[in-house]
Amino acid sequence: MKTTQQILQAAKAVSLALPLTTDAKNQALLAMADLLVAQQNVILEANAQDMDAARGHISEVMLDRLLLTSARIAAMAQGIRQVAALPDPVGKALATHTTPGGLLIEKTAVPMGVVAIIYESRPNVTSDAAALALKSGNVCVLRSGKEAWHSANAIVNVLQEALRSRGLAPEYIQLVQDTTRQSAAELMTAVGLVDLLIPRGGAGLIRACVENARVPCIQTGTGICHVYVDAAADQDMALAIIENAKTSRPSVCNAEEVCLVHRAIAAEFLPKLHQRLVTQRTAHGLAPVELRLCPQAAAVIPGTPAGPQDFDTEFLDYILAVKVVEDVFEAARHIAAHSTHHSEAIITQDECAARYFTQAVDSAAVYVNASTRFTDGGEFGLGCEMGISTQKLHARGPMGLAELCSYKYIIRGSGQIR
Amino acid sequence: MKTTQQILQAAKAVSLALPLTTDAKNQALLAMADLLVAQQNVILEANAQDMDAARGHISEVMLDRLLLTSARIAAMAQGIRQVAALPDPVGKALATHTTPGGLLIEKTAVPMGVVAIIYESRPNVTSDAAALALKSGNVCVLRSGKEAWHSANAIVNVLQEALRSRGLAPEYIQLVQDTTRQSAAELMTAVGLVDLLIPRGGAGLIRACVENARVPCIQTGTGICHVYVDAAADQDMALAIIENAKTSRPSVCNAEEVCLVHRAIAAEFLPKLHQRLVTQRTAHGLAPVELRLCPQAAAVIPGTPAGPQDFDTEFLDYILAVKVVEDVFEAARHIAAHSTHHSEAIITQDECAARYFTQAVDSAAVYVNASTRFTDGGEFGLGCEMGISTQKLHARGPMGLAELCSYKYIIRGSGQIR
Repeated sequence: MKTTQQILQAAKAVSLALPLTTDAKNQALLAMADLLVAQQNVILEANAQDMDAARGHISEVMLDRLLLTSARIAAMAQGIRQVAALPDPVGKALATHTTPGGLLIEKTAVPMGVVAIIYESRPNVTSDAAALALKSGNVCVLRSGKEAWHSANAIVNVLQEALRSRGLAPEYIQLVQDTTRQSAAELMTAVGLVDLLIPRGGAGLIRACVENARVPCIQTGTGICHVYVDAAADQDMALAIIENAKTSRPSVCNAEEVCLVHRAIAAEFLPKLHQRLVTQRTAHGLAPVELRLCPQAAAVIPGTPAGPQDFDTEFLDYILAVKVVEDVFEAARHIAAHSTHHSEAIITQDECAARYFTQAVDSAAVYVNASTRFTDGGEFGLGCEMGISTQKLHARGPMGLAELCSYKYIIRGSGQIR
Repeated sequence: MKTTQQILQAAKAVSLALPLTTDAKNQALLAMADLLVAQQNVILEANAQDMDAARGHISEVMLDRLLLTSARIAAMAQGIRQVAALPDPVGKALATHTTPGGLLIEKTAVPMGVVAIIYESRPNVTSDAAALALKSGNVCVLRSGKEAWHSANAIVNVLQEALRSRGLAPEYIQLVQDTTRQSAAELMTAVGLVDLLIPRGGAGLIRACVENARVPCIQTGTGICHVYVDAAADQDMALAIIENAKTSRPSVCNAEEVCLVHRAIAAEFLPKLHQRLVTQRTAHGLAPVELRLCPQAAAVIPGTPAGPQDFDTEFLDYILAVKVVEDVFEAARHIAAHSTHHSEAIITQDECAARYFTQAVDSAAVYVNASTRFTDGGEFGLGCEMGISTQKLHARGPMGLAELCSYKYIIRGSGQIR
């Protein structure tokens, strides 16, 4: 069994080789997709082992995240083929400049080098992340959560076999062999070996990275997303957007967690909100949304009184915190104090309020009259996604292939001196 | 006296205000430039205090870095006026995308927020950094080195007076009031208050930031730059480039520290190198370059035998480490192992060698047949520079106004749900 240090050393060595050609990368990706499908039985067996070990220890939702099926493996393969079809980001001239002295300066996209990805229990992240890393010219070191490790290991074995079949070093895609905290800590502190660390997981993992990472790191994924219903909102539009943002997929990071309502329309709008999210959904046999209400909202509609943590919690569930605010200014201040800077929306027909909101709210995605659920690499035209950055350095919002690259300046002269 | 925490809190509060207009920023910059000149006596007095305290404690070179004169203050003012004349990076649409469902997605440049800059003894950095931060819409917290603190404080007082005269909050530009390690550590760990930390200084400061920073950080400035003389080099060109890269300004980060020479031409080229850098310069009354030689080079020309650290040292002096290498591949391997990823050059007429070198060498600036001294924001067409990043995340090489910005996605819809 290779140690994490050995894996990182091998990854670094491969990353120092010349960049792969676009054709070599695409052929390898197609081979990876084909072999995942062809060898799905090995993967399904490993997944059954993970499922058996997890049953009784994790929730049904988490078990479903962990489960692989033939259809899900086919979808993983399809995802890889889509990455193969995307343009190669590496070598792209991002800018060119010729100096008066005749130097040709080209700003050229280059891979980061070794990208380490720490993730949790969804085994499909293994193939998604590996495909994106390979296409962007990077060497990846994957560190799966304990629950999904056998599945991830089986997937990586298949991907490495595909790499070998195309004459590429299997070290382009490696899985850390243990799932202890120690191995995560080793990735966080591997200065000189890890060029970029991407933690994909919950708030605890992100916090651990902020505290402990000594290597460049991009924080992803935690989303306390707000929808602010302005006095000048189209209220039917607001109801449709809130129901979509909250309930279409509550477990994802771009789902709404907090609804802010302008004081002037609270008495009119809140009963409609209760009707839409609680009464109507119950009547239709859908999961109702538990409303956690500030005192002003609680004076208007029934619900749970909001506790001190409810405006700082990523519920990832059918729960919505609701607060009445004075105006768009208080809405922006509340968001500044409580948001994770992922996605926020204003619902309004007032162009001034919309403009203020989009300028003042400092989040990766700021919406006017649309659902926060659109924050996604595919929707944003990136073709794919390695995660959604909630930081401001380097990449913000959905990270596609370009965001997995750095650049360097290549300067060609004929003897120029300064 | 304000504590560092109070300064950071005030900076954050100002950063949450709406972005300043281009006109407001430019008017403030011009007022800053004018007032620096008008109030130069106060600044020169404070500088005299710093110079008196420093004399006898720091080298002549460092004393010269610390010294302000009327001409230098005029140059600082001129630098600010140049920043005022540059295009405003904030609000620029970096990309736009319309979804099939009719969402308009605009990727818009925005300021980072609060930018903290830790620097050492050059007082002009104070006004340079403040001007770049203001123009890029950021709020800056400056932390000067002890030697230059009175000068920096006088400069910041003038800049703040200029801000006030234009109706802007003085908190856009603040100086940390103490110069202890504690204040630097506070900036490094001010999670949620500092959006970007830029350490501008030597290797020790950069190391301290890597070890201790919990806030996003861009490493700048240390340069162990290599010039590789290939077998197919125009040797006269190589000599001119090496003399320029080494001696035109030895104390800067883009100066050459190491010369690698292809084995096939070592016997012919090294005597010319010795002639150019030692004999000829001595004859012309110029500072000769001390050559620190690997054993193979020492067998050909006189010089100091290179010690174990000489290929890993930023000399910032008239000293050049010289090593004979097998070929361009060994040159690239040596650079990978010893470079700080700042600037490296190959001198060759062989297009294959040049192409290999530019692909394989993983540094911010990779030159073919030109001096490493060109790595500079002005030369690269950025108009200005906050420092030279030697990391791959976010900004690499010279950092201009665009590199001091992040972006956010602003999405406008008409009720779209997903």
